[in-house]
Amino acid sequence: MADETKILLAESEIPTHWVNLMPDLPGTPAPPLRPGTLEPAGPDDLAPIFPMALIEQEMSAEPEIAIPDEVREIYRLWRPTPLYRARRLERELDTPAHIYYKYEGTSPAGSHKPNTAVPQAYYNREAGIGRLSTETGAGQWGSALAFACRLMGMDCEVFMVGSSYDQKPYRRSLMETWGATVHRSPSQETEGGRAQASHPTGSLGIAISEAVEVAAGDGGTNYALGSVLNHVLLHQTVIGQEAVAQLVLAGEHPDVVIGCVGGGSNFAGIAVPFVRDMLRGGRKARFVACEPAACPTLTRGSYRYDFGDTMGMTPLMPMYTLGHDFVPPPVHAGGLRYHGDAPLVCGLVRAGVVEARAYKQNETFEAAVRFARTEGIVPAPEPAHAIRAAIDEALEAREAGDERVILFNLCGHGHFDLAAYDAYLAGELEDAEFSEAEMDAALARLPETPALA
Amino acid sequence: MADETKILLAESEIPTHWVNLMPDLPGTPAPPLRPGTLEPAGPDDLAPIFPMALIEQEMSAEPEIAIPDEVREIYRLWRPTPLYRARRLERELDTPAHIYYKYEGTSPAGSHKPNTAVPQAYYNREAGIGRLSTETGAGQWGSALAFACRLMGMDCEVFMVGSSYDQKPYRRSLMETWGATVHRSPSQETEGGRAQASHPTGSLGIAISEAVEVAAGDGGTNYALGSVLNHVLLHQTVIGQEAVAQLVLAGEHPDVVIGCVGGGSNFAGIAVPFVRDMLRGGRKARFVACEPAACPTLTRGSYRYDFGDTMGMTPLMPMYTLGHDFVPPPVHAGGLRYHGDAPLVCGLVRAGVVEARAYKQNETFEAAVRFARTEGIVPAPEPAHAIRAAIDEALEAREAGDERVILFNLCGHGHFDLAAYDAYLAGELEDAEFSEAEMDAALARLPETPALA
Repeated sequence: MADETKILLAESEIPTHWVNLMPDLPGTPAPPLRPGTLEPAGPDDLAPIFPMALIEQEMSAEPEIAIPDEVREIYRLWRPTPLYRARRLERELDTPAHIYYKYEGTSPAGSHKPNTAVPQAYYNREAGIGRLSTETGAGQWGSALAFACRLMGMDCEVFMVGSSYDQKPYRRSLMETWGATVHRSPSQETEGGRAQASHPTGSLGIAISEAVEVAAGDGGTNYALGSVLNHVLLHQTVIGQEAVAQLVLAGEHPDVVIGCVGGGSNFAGIAVPFVRDMLRGGRKARFVACEPAACPTLTRGSYRYDFGDTMGMTPLMPMYTLGHDFVPPPVHAGGLRYHGDAPLVCGLVRAGVVEARAYKQNETFEAAVRFARTEGIVPAPEPAHAIRAAIDEALEAREAGDERVILFNLCGHGHFDLAAYDAYLAGELEDAEFSEAEMDAALARLPETPALA
Repeated sequence: MADETKILLAESEIPTHWVNLMPDLPGTPAPPLRPGTLEPAGPDDLAPIFPMALIEQEMSAEPEIAIPDEVREIYRLWRPTPLYRARRLERELDTPAHIYYKYEGTSPAGSHKPNTAVPQAYYNREAGIGRLSTETGAGQWGSALAFACRLMGMDCEVFMVGSSYDQKPYRRSLMETWGATVHRSPSQETEGGRAQASHPTGSLGIAISEAVEVAAGDGGTNYALGSVLNHVLLHQTVIGQEAVAQLVLAGEHPDVVIGCVGGGSNFAGIAVPFVRDMLRGGRKARFVACEPAACPTLTRGSYRYDFGDTMGMTPLMPMYTLGHDFVPPPVHAGGLRYHGDAPLVCGLVRAGVVEARAYKQNETFEAAVRFARTEGIVPAPEPAHAIRAAIDEALEAREAGDERVILFNLCGHGHFDLAAYDAYLAGELEDAEFSEAEMDAALARLPETPALA
C-alpha cells in the first residue's frame, strides 16, 4: 500500500452511519431563536418547509444516525471517493510532509454537494413530498439537487440568481439535463420575485426568498438547503469517515486537517470524524478552516445571533457573522461568499478547536495552478483555499524538517470555473477588498439578541 | 462482488504492457504509401516529426509492448478507471441485459486521450525533444497533450481552430492552466498560417499544417497526433485490458463491445484485447463501431488509399474515407468529424470482425440525457453514440428475452459540452445531412492509388 497514489475503499466500506458531533461538544450549544420572541426555535418553526426526519436530525443528540439503504445505493455511483497521496506536489515543494487529499470531484455533479442532496431528496420523498425548491448562485448546489431529485423521481425547481443565469448558461443546462426547472431570479413565479422584478442582477437573498415562498405555499413542495444547517453537515461526514479508514490503510494519522469554508459543510464533512476522535481522547490534530479574505466571516466577523439568510426570514442562529445584509465583494469562489457560517463550525472556532485563516484571491489561484500542474486535477476556486493552506503547511514543514501529515478536502473540480482561471492567467484577477466599515454598519442594523458566551 | 456498482482494480493491476493487434490480424495489412512514388512508407518518412520509439511502435510486429515505469506512475493519477454496471439504466429499460461501461472521464483532462498523450510525451522527452506541437479542434486532444507535456516537463504548443478558439475560450483556458501555449489558427507563427491569414474560421486542416510545419522546421520540436495511427491505438489498449480483468471479477463475458469512432482510438482501446482473444480462438463477441450519420466514414465511405490529413501532407493510408477534403457538416460530437478512420479499425470492419453503425445527432442526445438521468454522469457527445447503440442492444435483448452482456466505452464526460445539451433541450439541434454528392466529388479529386483487397 505504501506506494499507492490513490487509496481506495470497496463499496462495502461506504459508511453505514453519519457522525453527529453535537453530543460530543463541550457544554450546551446555544439554540437557534425565533425572531421577535427570541424564544428557542423548535421543530414547528421548521415543519412548513422541511420533513420531520430532517428536523429530527437537525436537533438530534444521537452520536450516529443510520444511512438509509437507498441512499447508500446511490452513493455507490461515486463513493467511496479516492484519497490521493500528492506525491508529485510533495516533490515539487521539496517537502518532507506527507500531503493527502480527499477528492470529492468524482460525483456526477463534480462536488461534495450530492452527499447531502441525495438524503435530503430521499427523506422528503419518503414524507410524500413530490417537489423540492431551492436557490443557487453559481449553480453547484442547484446541480446537485437536480441530480438527486431526478434519481428519487421528484421534481426540482431552482431559482438561479439572475446575474449567474445570464453569465453561466451551462450551469443552467446541467440542471436542465437532470430534469430540473430553472427560473431566472427575480422571477414572475412568486410574490417576492414580482416585487423585485426590476432588480437587474438578482441576489442570493431574493432567490432564497422565492424558493422558500414556493415551499411554504405548497403542501407538496419543500425547501432544501445546501450548507450551514446541522443535518447538512451531518450528511457530509461520509467524507471524513472514509478518510479515517483510508489513512489507517496508509498507516498515517493527520497532524492537520484542512478545508475551505463557505457555509461549512465540506469542512465539517472531512473534519468532524477526526474532531470527535480527539474530543474523546484520541490523537490530537490541528484543524484549519480557510475562507476568502474578501468574506472573512470566521477571522473578522462578530460572534453573535444573526439570520441565516439575507432577507431575515430564518431563525436567528449563533455564529460568526459579517451581518446578514453585508454584501461581500465578488470573488470567483462564489460558494464561499456567505455572511455567516454553520453554527457547529463557528462553535468549534470559538472553542479554539478549529483555527481560521483567510486568503486573497490571487494567492489561492497561484496554489490552484501549481496543484493542476503537478497533480493534474484542476480544482474549483473554493477548495483552492484549502490547497493554499496545505502548501503553506508543507513549506513550513520543510523549514522545520518535519514529516507533517497534511490532509485536505478537494471538494470539487474546476471544469465549470475556467473563466476564473482565464482571468487569473491573464493577470486580471483582483484581490477584492473587504470593507470593515460596511460590516460594522451591517452589524449595527441587527436586532438586539442575547449575548453568546 | 455481484452487487457492486463499480468494479475497481488496484493500481498494481494497471496493465504492464500495451496490446498490439497487428501480428494477430489475418493476412498482411496493406502498408502506408509515400505520395508521389506510391512506394511503401518507412521509418524515414516519419522521422522528421516523430521519435524513433514511436515509429517502431507504429510498425511493430511484437504482440505486446512494455509500458515504461514512468508512464505507469502517471497513469496512477486516474487509472485503473472504474467499470460500472449500469443497474439503474437496466431497470429504466426493463431489460434482462447486463450493461457495463468503462468510464474514462476520470482522467484530469476528462477523456481517454491522456492514455496516449502521456507515453507520447514520454518517448519524445527521452529522445531529447523539449517541445511538442499539435492541433486541436474542440480541445479534447489539446488539453490532454498540455497535461501530459506539463507532467513530463516539456513545452506544448497548440494550434486551435479559429472558430473553436473564439467560441470555446474555456478549452483554451484549460490548456493554458496546464502551461500550454495556444495559438488561434490561422496564426502568424507559421508560413502556412500567414498564407491563410484572411481565413475567417480556420480549419483542422490548416491547424494540422501549422503544427507539422513547426515540428518539421525545429529539431527540438516534434508533432503529436491524438488518434488514427497504430501507436496511438496501441496506447489506448490499457482500457480494454482493464475491462477484461474487471469482467472476470464480475464473472461475465461481453456478447457485444461498443465504442464511438472518430479516428478510432477509444474504440480500438476497449475492443482490441477482446478481438485478439477471439481471433486466437477465445470466446466470440460482436464489436460495434458507432459514428455520426453526418460523417459516416465506416458505413458509407470508400475503402481505398487516402491522406490522413486535409492538406495531403501525410503518407497515404489504407482506410474507409469520405475524401480527405470532404467537410462534414457541423455536429457537436466534434471528435467524430474525421474524413477517415484508423487503418486498423477499417481493416477489422472490412474483414467483418467489426460492425459499423451511424446515428443521427438527436437520437444520440436523447440517449445521452436518458443516461444522465439514470446513471448520473453527463456524457460527452462522442460517447453518446456508443450509449445509443448500448440502449438499442438492451432493448433488443428485452424483445428477445436475452441476458445479453453489453460493454461500452464511456470515453469522456460532457462538462465542456453543455452548449450542445442546451441546444438539444431547447429543440434546436439539427440532424445535419450528409452529402453523398460532396463525398463523391471529394473522392474523385483523389490521386490514383493501388486498389485495396
